Amino acid sequence: MNLTFTSIDNMPMIEPGDDLVALAFDRLADMGERLEDDDVLVFAQKIISKAENRYLDLATVEPTEEAIRIAQEIDKDPRKVQAILNESNEIVRQAPGLLIVEQKRGFVQANAGIDQSNIKPRDGNLDDLCLLLPLDPDASAHKIHSEIASRYGCKVGVIINDSLGRAWRMGTLGLAIGVAGFTALEDYVGQRDIYERELLVTQVAAADEMAAAASLVMGQTTERTPVVLVRGYQPQEPADPALRGVAPLLRPRSMDLFR
Amino acid sequence: MNLTFTSIDNMPMIEPGDDLVALAFDRLADMGERLEDDDVLVFAQKIISKAENRYLDLATVEPTEEAIRIAQEIDKDPRKVQAILNESNEIVRQAPGLLIVEQKRGFVQANAGIDQSNIKPRDGNLDDLCLLLPLDPDASAHKIHSEIASRYGCKVGVIINDSLGRAWRMGTLGLAIGVAGFTALEDYVGQRDIYERELLVTQVAAADEMAAAASLVMGQTTERTPVVLVRGYQPQEPADPALRGVAPLLRPRSMDLFR
Repeated sequence: MNLTFTSIDNMPMIEPGDDLVALAFDRLADMGERLEDDDVLVFAQKIISKAENRYLDLATVEPTEEAIRIAQEIDKDPRKVQAILNESNEIVRQAPGLLIVEQKRGFVQANAGIDQSNIKPRDGNLDDLCLLLPLDPDASAHKIHSEIASRYGCKVGVIINDSLGRAWRMGTLGLAIGVAGFTALEDYVGQRDIYERELLVTQVAAADEMAAAASLVMGQTTERTPVVLVRGYQPQEPADPALRGVAPLLRPRSMDLFR
Repeated sequence: MNLTFTSIDNMPMIEPGDDLVALAFDRLADMGERLEDDDVLVFAQKIISKAENRYLDLATVEPTEEAIRIAQEIDKDPRKVQAILNESNEIVRQAPGLLIVEQKRGFVQANAGIDQSNIKPRDGNLDDLCLLLPLDPDASAHKIHSEIASRYGCKVGVIINDSLGRAWRMGTLGLAIGVAGFTALEDYVGQRDIYERELLVTQVAAADEMAAAASLVMGQTTERTPVVLVRGYQPQEPADPALRGVAPLLRPRSMDLFR
Protein backbone atom coordinates (compact mmCIF):
# COMPACT_ATOMS: atom_id res chain seq x y z
CA MET A 1 0.00 0.00 0.00
CA ASN A 2 1.17 3.50 -0.79
CA LEU A 3 -0.46 6.40 1.08
CA THR A 4 0.42 9.98 0.27
CA PHE A 5 -0.45 12.92 2.53
CA THR A 6 -0.24 16.24 0.66
CA SER A 7 -0.91 19.55 2.34
CA ILE A 8 -3.02 21.94 0.29
CA ASP A 9 -0.86 25.04 0.17
CA ASN A 10 -1.79 28.71 0.33
CA MET A 11 -5.24 28.42 1.85
CA PRO A 12 -6.34 31.90 2.97
CA MET A 13 -7.24 32.67 6.60
CA ILE A 14 -10.81 31.41 6.88
CA GLU A 15 -13.70 33.78 7.66
CA PRO A 16 -17.28 32.95 8.67
CA GLY A 17 -19.30 31.80 5.68
CA ASP A 18 -16.27 30.89 3.55
CA ASP A 19 -16.81 28.08 1.06
CA LEU A 20 -14.16 25.59 2.19
CA VAL A 21 -14.83 23.13 -0.61
CA ALA A 22 -14.33 25.77 -3.33
CA LEU A 23 -11.23 27.16 -1.61
CA ALA A 24 -9.63 23.73 -1.28
CA PHE A 25 -10.54 22.80 -4.83
CA ASP A 26 -9.05 26.03 -6.23
CA ARG A 27 -5.83 25.66 -4.26
CA LEU A 28 -5.53 22.06 -5.46
CA ALA A 29 -5.95 23.32 -9.02
CA ASP A 30 -3.15 25.84 -8.40
CA MET A 31 -0.98 22.85 -7.43
CA GLY A 32 -1.88 21.09 -10.68
CA GLU A 33 -4.02 18.57 -8.80
CA ARG A 34 -7.67 17.64 -8.80
CA LEU A 35 -9.78 15.42 -6.56
CA GLU A 36 -10.31 11.82 -7.62
CA ASP A 37 -12.67 9.12 -6.43
CA ASP A 38 -11.30 7.41 -3.30
CA ASP A 39 -9.31 10.44 -2.18
CA VAL A 40 -9.67 11.48 1.45
CA LEU A 41 -9.65 15.12 2.55
CA VAL A 42 -8.74 15.91 6.15
CA PHE A 43 -9.84 19.33 7.41
CA ALA A 44 -8.52 20.93 10.59
CA GLN A 45 -11.32 21.51 13.10
CA LYS A 46 -10.32 25.13 13.41
CA ILE A 47 -11.21 26.13 9.86
CA ILE A 48 -14.54 24.30 10.06
CA SER A 49 -15.35 26.20 13.26
CA LYS A 50 -14.28 29.51 11.69
CA ALA A 51 -16.33 28.94 8.53
CA GLU A 52 -19.31 28.02 10.74
CA ASN A 53 -18.76 31.16 12.85
CA ARG A 54 -18.37 29.26 16.10
CA TYR A 55 -16.75 32.26 17.80
CA LEU A 56 -17.58 33.08 21.37
CA ASP A 57 -16.72 36.39 23.01
CA LEU A 58 -16.03 35.69 26.69
CA ALA A 59 -17.19 39.26 27.47
CA THR A 60 -20.72 37.99 26.79
CA VAL A 61 -20.43 35.02 29.19
CA GLU A 62 -21.94 35.34 32.69
CA PRO A 63 -20.43 32.70 34.98
CA THR A 64 -22.74 30.83 37.34
CA GLU A 65 -21.85 30.14 40.98
CA GLU A 66 -20.71 26.64 39.98
CA ALA A 67 -18.34 28.06 37.35
CA ILE A 68 -16.97 30.63 39.84
CA ARG A 69 -16.34 27.89 42.41
CA ILE A 70 -14.54 25.63 39.90
CA ALA A 71 -12.59 28.61 38.53
CA GLN A 72 -11.28 29.30 42.03
CA GLU A 73 -10.39 25.63 42.56
CA ILE A 74 -8.37 25.38 39.34
CA ASP A 75 -7.24 29.03 38.99
CA LYS A 76 -8.85 29.77 35.64
CA ASP A 77 -10.97 32.60 34.19
CA PRO A 78 -14.54 31.90 35.45
CA ARG A 79 -16.00 33.01 32.12
CA LYS A 80 -13.86 30.41 30.38
CA VAL A 81 -14.92 27.74 32.86
CA GLN A 82 -18.54 28.66 32.13
CA ALA A 83 -17.94 28.45 28.39
CA ILE A 84 -16.43 24.96 28.87
CA LEU A 85 -19.34 23.82 31.05
CA ASN A 86 -21.79 25.09 28.41
CA GLU A 87 -20.09 22.88 25.82
CA SER A 88 -19.88 19.76 28.02
CA ASN A 89 -21.92 16.84 29.29
CA GLU A 90 -19.79 16.37 32.41
CA ILE A 91 -16.44 17.06 34.04
CA VAL A 92 -14.15 14.01 33.90
CA ARG A 93 -11.15 15.43 35.80
CA GLN A 94 -10.01 18.83 37.03
CA ALA A 95 -6.53 20.06 37.90
CA PRO A 96 -4.85 23.48 38.15
CA GLY A 97 -5.60 25.32 34.90
CA LEU A 98 -7.21 22.25 33.36
CA LEU A 99 -10.73 20.89 32.92
CA ILE A 100 -11.03 17.53 31.17
CA VAL A 101 -14.65 17.05 30.15
CA GLU A 102 -16.91 14.98 28.00
CA GLN A 103 -17.69 17.52 25.29
CA LYS A 104 -21.32 17.58 24.14
CA ARG A 105 -20.63 15.37 21.10
CA GLY A 106 -18.99 12.77 23.36
CA PHE A 107 -15.26 13.59 22.98
CA VAL A 108 -13.28 13.37 26.22
CA GLN A 109 -10.85 16.26 25.94
CA ALA A 110 -9.36 19.26 27.70
CA ASN A 111 -11.40 22.47 27.81
CA ALA A 112 -14.17 21.04 25.58
CA GLY A 113 -11.94 21.76 22.59
CA ILE A 114 -12.29 25.52 23.05
CA ASP A 115 -9.26 27.19 21.56
CA GLN A 116 -7.77 30.66 21.30
CA SER A 117 -4.66 30.24 19.16
CA ASN A 118 -4.54 31.59 15.61
CA ILE A 119 -7.76 33.55 16.19
CA LYS A 120 -7.75 37.13 15.01
CA PRO A 121 -8.16 39.36 18.07
CA ARG A 122 -11.04 41.86 18.11
CA ASP A 123 -10.28 45.40 19.32
CA GLY A 124 -6.73 44.31 20.05
CA ASN A 125 -7.90 42.09 22.94
CA LEU A 126 -6.13 38.73 22.71
CA ASP A 127 -7.92 37.14 25.62
CA ASP A 128 -11.66 37.34 25.08
CA LEU A 129 -12.33 35.69 21.73
CA CYS A 130 -12.62 31.90 21.64
CA LEU A 131 -13.48 29.31 19.04
CA LEU A 132 -15.83 26.42 19.89
CA LEU A 133 -15.91 23.04 18.18
CA PRO A 134 -18.34 22.71 15.27
CA LEU A 135 -21.88 22.11 16.53
CA ASP A 136 -22.02 18.71 14.80
CA PRO A 137 -18.68 17.71 13.21
CA ASP A 138 -20.18 14.64 11.52
CA ALA A 139 -22.77 16.87 9.86
CA SER A 140 -20.02 19.27 8.80
CA ALA A 141 -18.04 16.38 7.27
CA HIS A 142 -21.15 15.03 5.59
CA LYS A 143 -21.94 18.44 4.09
CA ILE A 144 -18.45 18.66 2.59
CA HIS A 145 -18.70 15.08 1.32
CA SER A 146 -22.05 15.83 -0.37
CA GLU A 147 -20.93 19.15 -1.83
CA ILE A 148 -17.89 17.54 -3.42
CA ALA A 149 -20.09 14.81 -4.87
CA SER A 150 -22.65 17.21 -6.32
CA ARG A 151 -20.24 19.88 -7.60
CA TYR A 152 -17.35 17.79 -8.82
CA GLY A 153 -18.87 14.33 -9.21
CA CYS A 154 -16.26 12.84 -6.87
CA LYS A 155 -16.74 10.32 -4.08
CA VAL A 156 -14.19 11.21 -1.42
CA GLY A 157 -13.84 10.43 2.27
CA VAL A 158 -13.88 13.40 4.64
CA ILE A 159 -12.33 13.60 8.11
CA ILE A 160 -12.32 16.58 10.46
CA ASN A 161 -9.41 16.29 12.88
CA ASP A 162 -8.35 18.03 16.06
CA SER A 163 -5.27 17.81 18.29
CA LEU A 164 -6.21 16.07 21.52
CA GLY A 165 -4.32 15.16 24.67
CA ARG A 166 -4.57 11.68 26.11
CA ALA A 167 -4.09 9.58 29.22
CA TRP A 168 -0.68 8.00 29.93
CA ARG A 169 1.25 9.69 27.13
CA MET A 170 2.61 13.19 26.55
CA GLY A 171 1.84 15.43 23.59
CA THR A 172 -1.24 15.90 21.50
CA LEU A 173 -2.30 13.58 18.72
CA GLY A 174 -4.48 14.41 15.73
CA LEU A 175 -7.73 12.46 16.07
CA ALA A 176 -10.96 12.34 14.09
CA ILE A 177 -13.91 14.35 15.44
CA GLY A 178 -16.06 14.20 12.28
CA VAL A 179 -16.21 11.54 9.57
CA ALA A 180 -18.14 11.03 6.30
CA GLY A 181 -17.72 8.48 3.53
CA PHE A 182 -15.14 6.60 5.59
CA THR A 183 -15.26 3.66 8.01
CA ALA A 184 -13.98 5.23 11.24
CA LEU A 185 -13.56 1.93 13.11
CA GLU A 186 -12.38 -1.07 11.10
CA ASP A 187 -13.79 -4.26 12.58
CA TYR A 188 -11.93 -7.55 12.22
CA VAL A 189 -14.01 -9.50 14.77
CA GLY A 190 -14.17 -13.14 13.73
CA GLN A 191 -11.29 -12.86 11.25
CA ARG A 192 -8.33 -15.16 11.66
CA ASP A 193 -4.58 -14.80 11.45
CA ILE A 194 -2.36 -16.68 9.02
CA TYR A 195 -2.30 -19.67 11.39
CA GLU A 196 -6.11 -19.71 11.69
CA ARG A 197 -6.02 -18.30 15.23
CA GLU A 198 -8.63 -15.66 16.09
CA LEU A 199 -7.13 -12.16 16.00
CA LEU A 200 -6.38 -10.44 19.28
CA VAL A 201 -6.57 -6.93 17.82
CA THR A 202 -10.07 -6.83 16.43
CA GLN A 203 -10.95 -3.16 16.02
CA VAL A 204 -8.69 -0.55 14.49
CA ALA A 205 -9.33 3.19 14.75
CA ALA A 206 -8.62 3.79 11.05
CA ALA A 207 -9.95 7.37 10.96
CA ASP A 208 -7.78 8.29 13.95
CA GLU A 209 -4.71 6.72 12.34
CA MET A 210 -5.26 8.82 9.25
CA ALA A 211 -6.16 11.96 11.24
CA ALA A 212 -2.92 11.61 13.18
CA ALA A 213 -0.58 11.71 10.20
CA ALA A 214 -2.65 14.49 8.61
CA SER A 215 -2.04 16.52 11.75
CA LEU A 216 1.71 15.97 11.35
CA VAL A 217 1.48 17.31 7.79
CA MET A 218 -0.64 20.30 8.84
CA GLY A 219 1.81 21.41 11.53
CA GLN A 220 0.84 23.35 14.61
CA THR A 221 2.24 26.84 14.71
CA THR A 222 0.46 28.43 11.74
CA GLU A 223 -2.76 27.76 9.97
CA ARG A 224 -1.47 27.87 6.42
CA THR A 225 -2.04 24.20 5.63
CA PRO A 226 -5.32 23.23 7.32
CA VAL A 227 -6.41 20.76 4.61
CA VAL A 228 -4.58 17.57 3.67
CA LEU A 229 -5.28 15.34 0.68
CA VAL A 230 -4.72 11.63 1.34
CA ARG A 231 -4.42 9.39 -1.67
CA GLY A 232 -4.17 5.60 -1.84
CA TYR A 233 -6.61 4.48 0.85
CA GLN A 234 -9.91 3.71 -0.91
CA PRO A 235 -12.29 4.80 1.85
CA GLN A 236 -15.63 3.09 2.21
CA GLU A 237 -18.88 4.29 3.76
CA PRO A 238 -20.13 1.61 6.20
CA ALA A 239 -23.21 -0.17 4.85
CA ASP A 240 -24.84 -0.01 8.29
CA PRO A 241 -25.92 3.59 8.99
CA ALA A 242 -25.30 3.00 12.72
CA LEU A 243 -21.58 2.58 11.95
CA ARG A 244 -21.25 5.82 10.02
CA GLY A 245 -19.67 8.99 11.36
CA VAL A 246 -17.35 9.28 14.34
CA ALA A 247 -19.64 7.60 16.91
CA PRO A 248 -18.07 4.11 16.61
CA LEU A 249 -14.78 5.64 17.83
CA LEU A 250 -16.30 6.87 21.08
CA ARG A 251 -16.06 4.36 23.92
CA PRO A 252 -19.36 4.00 25.74
CA ARG A 253 -19.05 5.18 29.33
CA SER A 254 -20.06 1.71 30.58
CA MET A 255 -17.05 0.18 28.76
CA ASP A 256 -14.58 2.83 29.90
CA LEU A 257 -12.32 2.00 32.86
CA PHE A 258 -10.87 5.52 32.83
CA ARG A 259 -13.73 7.89 33.73
CA MET B 1 4.50 19.11 2.93
CA ASN B 2 4.19 15.81 1.14
CA LEU B 3 4.54 12.62 3.19
CA THR B 4 4.45 9.21 1.55
CA PHE B 5 3.97 5.96 3.45
CA THR B 6 5.04 2.95 1.39
CA SER B 7 4.74 -0.60 2.66
CA ILE B 8 7.76 -2.77 1.94
CA ASP B 9 6.24 -5.73 0.15
CA ASN B 10 7.07 -9.43 0.32
CA MET B 11 8.94 -9.49 3.60
CA PRO B 12 9.34 -13.14 4.67
CA MET B 13 7.95 -14.41 7.97
CA ILE B 14 10.62 -13.39 10.46
CA GLU B 15 12.62 -15.96 12.45
CA PRO B 16 14.86 -15.44 15.49
CA GLY B 17 18.20 -13.98 14.45
CA ASP B 18 16.97 -12.65 11.11
CA ASP B 19 18.74 -9.55 9.82
CA LEU B 20 15.80 -7.14 9.50
CA VAL B 21 17.89 -4.36 7.99
CA ALA B 22 19.21 -6.56 5.19
CA LEU B 23 15.75 -8.04 4.54
CA ALA B 24 14.09 -4.61 4.33
CA PHE B 25 16.90 -3.25 2.15
CA ASP B 26 16.66 -6.19 -0.27
CA ARG B 27 12.87 -5.94 -0.56
CA LEU B 28 13.19 -2.21 -1.19
CA ALA B 29 15.68 -2.97 -3.94
CA ASP B 30 13.16 -5.44 -5.44
CA MET B 31 10.71 -2.52 -5.55
CA GLY B 32 13.25 -0.37 -7.36
CA GLU B 33 13.76 1.79 -4.27
CA ARG B 34 16.66 2.56 -1.99
CA LEU B 35 16.96 4.34 1.34
CA GLU B 36 17.84 8.02 1.30
CA ASP B 37 18.91 10.42 4.01
CA ASP B 38 15.90 11.74 5.93
CA ASP B 39 13.75 8.68 5.25
CA VAL B 40 11.97 7.13 8.21
CA LEU B 41 11.47 3.38 8.59
CA VAL B 42 8.66 2.14 10.80
CA PHE B 43 8.95 -1.47 11.98
CA ALA B 44 6.08 -3.44 13.51
CA GLN B 45 6.90 -4.49 17.08
CA LYS B 46 6.08 -8.07 16.24
CA ILE B 47 8.93 -8.61 13.80
CA ILE B 48 11.42 -6.97 16.17
CA SER B 49 10.27 -9.33 18.92
CA LYS B 50 10.49 -12.33 16.60
CA ALA B 51 13.97 -11.41 15.37
CA GLU B 52 15.04 -10.95 19.00
CA ASN B 53 13.52 -14.34 19.91
CA ARG B 54 11.19 -12.89 22.55
CA TYR B 55 9.03 -16.00 22.55
CA LEU B 56 7.63 -17.35 25.77
CA ASP B 57 6.12 -20.80 26.11
CA LEU B 58 3.37 -20.60 28.73
CA ALA B 59 4.00 -24.27 29.56
CA THR B 60 7.20 -23.07 31.27
CA VAL B 61 5.43 -20.45 33.42
CA GLU B 62 4.61 -21.30 37.05
CA PRO B 63 1.91 -18.94 38.34
CA THR B 64 2.33 -17.52 41.84
CA GLU B 65 -0.55 -17.29 44.32
CA GLU B 66 -1.07 -13.66 43.31
CA ALA B 67 -1.37 -14.60 39.64
CA ILE B 68 -3.80 -17.41 40.46
CA ARG B 69 -5.97 -15.03 42.52
CA ILE B 70 -6.05 -12.38 39.76
CA ALA B 71 -6.69 -15.04 37.12
CA GLN B 72 -9.77 -16.16 39.06
CA GLU B 73 -10.98 -12.56 39.45
CA ILE B 74 -10.74 -11.78 35.72
CA ASP B 75 -11.27 -15.28 34.30
CA LYS B 76 -7.96 -15.64 32.48
CA ASP B 77 -5.26 -18.34 32.16
CA PRO B 78 -3.17 -17.97 35.37
CA ARG B 79 0.03 -18.68 33.42
CA LYS B 80 -0.80 -15.78 31.13
CA VAL B 81 -1.52 -13.52 34.10
CA GLN B 82 1.88 -14.49 35.52
CA ALA B 83 3.57 -13.74 32.18
CA ILE B 84 1.91 -10.29 32.16
CA LEU B 85 2.94 -9.58 35.77
CA ASN B 86 6.53 -10.61 34.94
CA GLU B 87 6.56 -7.97 32.17
CA SER B 88 4.95 -5.19 34.24
CA ASN B 89 5.73 -2.57 36.85
CA GLU B 90 2.16 -2.43 38.15
CA ILE B 91 -1.47 -3.19 37.39
CA VAL B 92 -3.38 -0.05 36.36
CA ARG B 93 -6.86 -1.59 35.91
CA GLN B 94 -8.35 -5.06 35.74
CA ALA B 95 -11.63 -6.25 34.25
CA PRO B 96 -12.95 -9.58 32.97
CA GLY B 97 -10.36 -10.99 30.55
CA LEU B 98 -8.29 -7.81 30.71
CA LEU B 99 -5.24 -6.56 32.61
CA ILE B 100 -4.13 -3.02 31.86
CA VAL B 101 -0.63 -2.56 33.23
CA GLU B 102 2.37 -0.33 33.13
CA GLN B 103 4.69 -2.50 31.08
CA LYS B 104 8.30 -2.57 32.29
CA ARG B 105 9.43 0.06 29.77
CA GLY B 106 6.65 2.41 30.96
CA PHE B 107 3.91 1.80 28.37
CA VAL B 108 0.39 1.67 29.79
CA GLN B 109 -1.27 -1.05 27.75
CA ALA B 110 -3.37 -4.19 27.86
CA ASN B 111 -1.65 -7.47 28.72
CA ALA B 112 1.83 -5.87 28.75
CA GLY B 113 1.82 -6.07 24.97
CA ILE B 114 2.03 -9.87 25.04
CA ASP B 115 0.54 -11.19 21.82
CA GLN B 116 -0.35 -14.51 20.27
CA SER B 117 -1.64 -13.67 16.78
CA ASN B 118 0.44 -14.50 13.71
CA ILE B 119 2.77 -16.65 15.79
CA LYS B 120 3.65 -20.02 14.34
CA PRO B 121 2.28 -22.67 16.71
CA ARG B 122 4.69 -25.28 18.13
CA ASP B 123 3.54 -28.91 18.22
CA GLY B 124 0.18 -27.82 16.86
CA ASN B 125 -0.67 -26.04 20.13
CA LEU B 126 -2.13 -22.61 19.35
CA ASP B 127 -2.47 -21.49 22.94
CA ASP B 128 0.87 -21.82 24.66
CA LEU B 129 3.29 -19.77 22.60
CA CYS B 130 3.40 -16.00 23.22
CA LEU B 131 5.52 -13.12 22.01
CA LEU B 132 6.78 -10.48 24.47
CA LEU B 133 7.69 -6.90 23.60
CA PRO B 134 11.35 -6.28 22.75
CA LEU B 135 13.44 -6.03 25.92
CA ASP B 136 14.41 -2.41 25.10
CA PRO B 137 12.61 -1.07 22.00
CA ASP B 138 14.67 2.14 21.96
CA ALA B 139 17.84 0.05 21.87
CA SER B 140 16.34 -2.06 19.06
CA ALA B 141 15.52 1.10 17.09
CA HIS B 142 18.96 2.54 17.77
CA LYS B 143 20.64 -0.66 16.58
CA ILE B 144 18.72 -0.52 13.28
CA HIS B 145 19.50 3.19 12.93
CA SER B 146 23.24 2.52 13.45
CA GLU B 147 23.35 -0.51 11.17
CA ILE B 148 21.76 1.44 8.33
CA ALA B 149 24.26 4.25 8.86
CA SER B 150 27.27 1.95 8.87
CA ARG B 151 26.21 -0.41 6.07
CA TYR B 152 24.51 1.97 3.68
CA GLY B 153 25.80 5.40 4.74
CA CYS B 154 22.25 6.64 5.26
CA LYS B 155 20.89 8.74 8.12
CA VAL B 156 17.29 7.60 8.62
CA GLY B 157 14.80 7.87 11.45
CA VAL B 158 13.57 4.60 12.97
CA ILE B 159 10.30 3.99 14.80
CA ILE B 160 9.04 0.72 16.24
CA ASN B 161 5.25 0.79 16.48
CA ASP B 162 2.60 -1.31 18.16
CA SER B 163 -1.21 -1.26 18.15
CA LEU B 164 -2.43 -0.03 21.52
CA GLY B 165 -5.84 0.52 23.04
CA ARG B 166 -6.66 3.76 24.82
CA ALA B 167 -8.96 5.42 27.31
CA TRP B 168 -12.19 7.04 26.09
CA ARG B 169 -12.05 5.84 22.48
CA MET B 170 -12.62 2.52 20.75
CA GLY B 171 -10.17 0.70 18.52
CA THR B 172 -6.44 0.36 18.60
CA LEU B 173 -4.05 3.00 17.33
CA GLY B 174 -0.50 2.50 16.11
CA LEU B 175 1.85 4.22 18.57
CA ALA B 176 5.62 4.47 18.91
CA ILE B 177 7.29 2.15 21.44
CA GLY B 178 10.87 2.66 20.21
CA VAL B 179 12.48 5.66 18.51
CA ALA B 180 15.92 6.52 17.10
CA GLY B 181 17.10 9.46 15.00
CA PHE B 182 13.71 11.13 15.38
CA THR B 183 12.26 13.71 17.79
CA ALA B 184 9.40 11.77 19.38
CA LEU B 185 7.83 14.79 21.09
CA GLU B 186 7.92 18.09 19.21
CA ASP B 187 8.05 20.97 21.66
CA TYR B 188 6.59 24.36 20.74
CA VAL B 189 6.70 25.82 24.25
CA GLY B 190 7.28 29.56 24.04
CA GLN B 191 6.42 29.75 20.32
CA ARG B 192 3.67 32.13 19.25
CA ASP B 193 0.80 31.96 16.81
CA ILE B 194 0.35 34.25 13.82
CA TYR B 195 -1.22 36.89 16.11
CA GLU B 196 1.68 36.69 18.58
CA ARG B 197 -0.40 34.83 21.16
CA GLU B 198 1.31 31.98 23.02
CA LEU B 199 0.31 28.60 21.60
CA LEU B 200 -2.14 26.48 23.56
CA VAL B 201 -0.99 23.22 21.99
CA THR B 202 2.66 23.15 22.91
CA GLN B 203 3.77 19.55 22.59
CA VAL B 204 2.96 17.28 19.68
CA ALA B 205 3.49 13.51 19.75
CA ALA B 206 5.12 13.45 16.31
CA ALA B 207 6.42 9.87 16.51
CA ASP B 208 2.95 8.64 17.49
CA GLU B 209 1.33 10.54 14.63
CA MET B 210 3.71 8.86 12.19
CA ALA B 211 3.40 5.46 13.87
CA ALA B 212 -0.39 5.67 13.56
CA ALA B 213 -0.51 6.09 9.79
CA ALA B 214 2.22 3.48 9.37
CA SER B 215 -0.03 1.06 11.24
CA LEU B 216 -2.83 1.83 8.78
CA VAL B 217 -0.50 0.98 5.90
CA MET B 218 0.74 -2.22 7.57
CA GLY B 219 -2.76 -3.58 8.12
CA GLN B 220 -3.70 -5.96 10.89
CA THR B 221 -4.72 -9.37 9.66
CA THR B 222 -1.48 -10.63 8.15
CA GLU B 223 2.13 -9.85 8.69
CA ARG B 224 3.17 -9.43 5.10
CA THR B 225 3.94 -5.69 5.29
CA PRO B 226 5.53 -5.12 8.71
CA VAL B 227 7.89 -2.36 7.54
CA VAL B 228 6.84 1.02 6.15
CA LEU B 229 9.06 3.60 4.48
CA VAL B 230 8.05 7.21 5.20
CA ARG B 231 9.47 9.87 2.93
CA GLY B 232 9.18 13.66 3.18
CA TYR B 233 9.52 14.29 6.89
CA GLN B 234 13.18 15.12 7.53
CA PRO B 235 13.53 13.56 10.98
CA GLN B 236 15.95 15.04 13.47
CA GLU B 237 17.72 13.52 16.44
CA PRO B 238 17.17 15.76 19.49
CA ALA B 239 20.36 17.60 20.48
CA ASP B 240 19.67 16.89 24.16
CA PRO B 241 20.29 13.17 24.85
CA ALA B 242 17.58 13.27 27.53
CA LEU B 243 15.00 13.96 24.80
CA ARG B 244 16.01 11.02 22.61
CA GLY B 245 14.09 7.79 22.28
CA VAL B 246 10.49 7.18 23.30
CA ALA B 247 10.75 8.38 26.92
CA PRO B 248 9.50 11.96 26.24
CA LEU B 249 6.18 10.42 25.06
CA LEU B 250 5.57 8.66 28.38
CA ARG B 251 3.59 10.79 30.83
CA PRO B 252 5.16 10.75 34.29
CA ARG B 253 2.86 9.10 36.82
CA SER B 254 2.77 12.33 38.86
CA MET B 255 1.34 14.23 35.87
CA ASP B 256 -1.20 11.55 34.94
CA LEU B 257 -4.79 12.05 36.08
CA PHE B 258 -5.78 8.63 34.73
CA ARG B 259 -3.89 6.05 36.80
